[in-house]
Amino acid sequence: MLKAQYSERGPVPQAVIEALPFDRPVPAPGQALVAVLAAPINPSDVLMLTGQYGMLPPLPAVGGSEGVGRVIELGPDTKGPAVGQTVLLPVGAGTWATHVLVPAARLVPLPNDADPKQLAMLTVNPPTASLLLSDFVDLQPGDWVMQNGANSGVGSYLVQLAKLRGLKTVNIVRRESAVAGVQAQGGDVVLVDGDDLAERVKAATGGAAIKLGVDAVGGAATMRLAACLAEGATIVNYGALSGEPCSVSPRELVFRDVTLKGFWLARWFGITPQAKQMALLTELAGLIAAGKLSTPIQATYEVGQIKEAIAAAAAGERQGKILIAPTHA
Amino acid sequence: MLKAQYSERGPVPQAVIEALPFDRPVPAPGQALVAVLAAPINPSDVLMLTGQYGMLPPLPAVGGSEGVGRVIELGPDTKGPAVGQTVLLPVGAGTWATHVLVPAARLVPLPNDADPKQLAMLTVNPPTASLLLSDFVDLQPGDWVMQNGANSGVGSYLVQLAKLRGLKTVNIVRRESAVAGVQAQGGDVVLVDGDDLAERVKAATGGAAIKLGVDAVGGAATMRLAACLAEGATIVNYGALSGEPCSVSPRELVFRDVTLKGFWLARWFGITPQAKQMALLTELAGLIAAGKLSTPIQATYEVGQIKEAIAAAAAGERQGKILIAPTHA
Repeated sequence: MLKAQYSERGPVPQAVIEALPFDRPVPAPGQALVAVLAAPINPSDVLMLTGQYGMLPPLPAVGGSEGVGRVIELGPDTKGPAVGQTVLLPVGAGTWATHVLVPAARLVPLPNDADPKQLAMLTVNPPTASLLLSDFVDLQPGDWVMQNGANSGVGSYLVQLAKLRGLKTVNIVRRESAVAGVQAQGGDVVLVDGDDLAERVKAATGGAAIKLGVDAVGGAATMRLAACLAEGATIVNYGALSGEPCSVSPRELVFRDVTLKGFWLARWFGITPQAKQMALLTELAGLIAAGKLSTPIQATYEVGQIKEAIAAAAAGERQGKILIAPTHA
Repeated sequence: MLKAQYSERGPVPQAVIEALPFDRPVPAPGQALVAVLAAPINPSDVLMLTGQYGMLPPLPAVGGSEGVGRVIELGPDTKGPAVGQTVLLPVGAGTWATHVLVPAARLVPLPNDADPKQLAMLTVNPPTASLLLSDFVDLQPGDWVMQNGANSGVGSYLVQLAKLRGLKTVNIVRRESAVAGVQAQGGDVVLVDGDDLAERVKAATGGAAIKLGVDAVGGAATMRLAACLAEGATIVNYGALSGEPCSVSPRELVFRDVTLKGFWLARWFGITPQAKQMALLTELAGLIAAGKLSTPIQATYEVGQIKEAIAAAAAGERQGKILIAPTHA
């Protein structure tokens, strides 16, 4: 059995993490031993390795915030999903491992016949995309939404969820080679970022009033996004792909009443009743299991390849997510 | 009679405006001829000359958005404040003139025995300061508020209004020479901006949770302000003294739930019922007439000195407002 563990944080994420062997643990009462089937590498996971995330687990820590596995053993007198059941692992379980030992009560059963790789990405990106669309601006079918970083994981879920809700999307990417992928996911308008963005968006949408802008990039990209939005619009930032602070001119804030807010899924999990969390995850799991919601996967890696996997996830210009997907004999 | 008029806009505001003589107009029915007593030069007035403001009057235009005068003649069969009455001129009247011809019904009587120079600044800066304090965050007596650009006109009113409402203020200025003036107006904490601002604010306030930040500067100053505020706080921007876009890191927006909004008094006047506007202006006029609300005046100029006056207003490092205050024989 292997786990990808880090004992210090540093600027080169693949340098601080390594695959370590461990003995098969014996589940105590209430515990379940789960074989991990798939666990993605999210940008937030990488920021935990570099120390730039909003909350950091104590060290040493096993990487990986979300994932899907199969129950292989339950502790004595333990109620929970049966051995053989596909389950969602609890958030923050340290999922980049061949096996994890977790409280059985915190496992959520998932369909055994659905793609575990797509289900493994259920907990972080799809709820982020869903809540970005629902919790900031009251949108009606036919309304337009605009996002940058549209070829990211969250971006691809946002395109699909918007379509399912009857919303239209303006999607901004940072390179020409990312356009086709976002179009394939159903993006109504897909444009490469640039200085004349507002004019191109106006032309492509027929001058539609866009009340919600979703910002994953920061820097001057936030300002270019703001200039495309309607008076009184809200921008919600959830990422900093540019590595720069969000920039918005007083002209947009003061004269055009644009608001800039942030969204952090971890806070939402912290303040939202469990039943409401489960309702959202159940809805999204159903869409994923039905094949209505998915995101491209660029490559999968074994736990033993963790350094390669992290380097691939941290690199730009990907065509999809990087997953840890241990092979089980 | 003289008026300060501009027929084009340009980057050097004093270059586009000039004092022009005009003949004494004859008030038509419903009109009043008012001798201007005092009219300030606000930053927004200068931005109208350079073309950078959110709304621009058609050209040619007489400069000056607000001011106070004395009625010297009413049109035939015209009801309105009597000849000799001190009155508030309607917003946008073109107040940088010795005399203005205005609809008598839009004149608001003011105490004849109060300082017309202080009353002349009633319409723009005091309501801005008041609404910044009341319309964004629910503040209770004892709460702290933080602002930068604290030695500006709005800044000085904000300090005084906060004190009248039992609020405490952290005031940030950009140079040491501005500290004493803000302290004299009643600022509880006055600090010069810099990189270690958050630590100095924490020390000066005993780590108080500051829920409202008021930003007149933009650029990196917005980010330094954000770092001083409590989780979930709101920053309201109303100016761009730095000339740069507001900068806020995703760390503050996402992990600390900070919101960045803008405030524009012109929009508030546009969407707020007349009675509510008058209630606020009446309250503020009462405070000014009673000497409870005032702002320092650096210098006053005649209409014929308009170029000098604008140059003085546009320059930095002032110790107070610049006013046009025509001498009447």
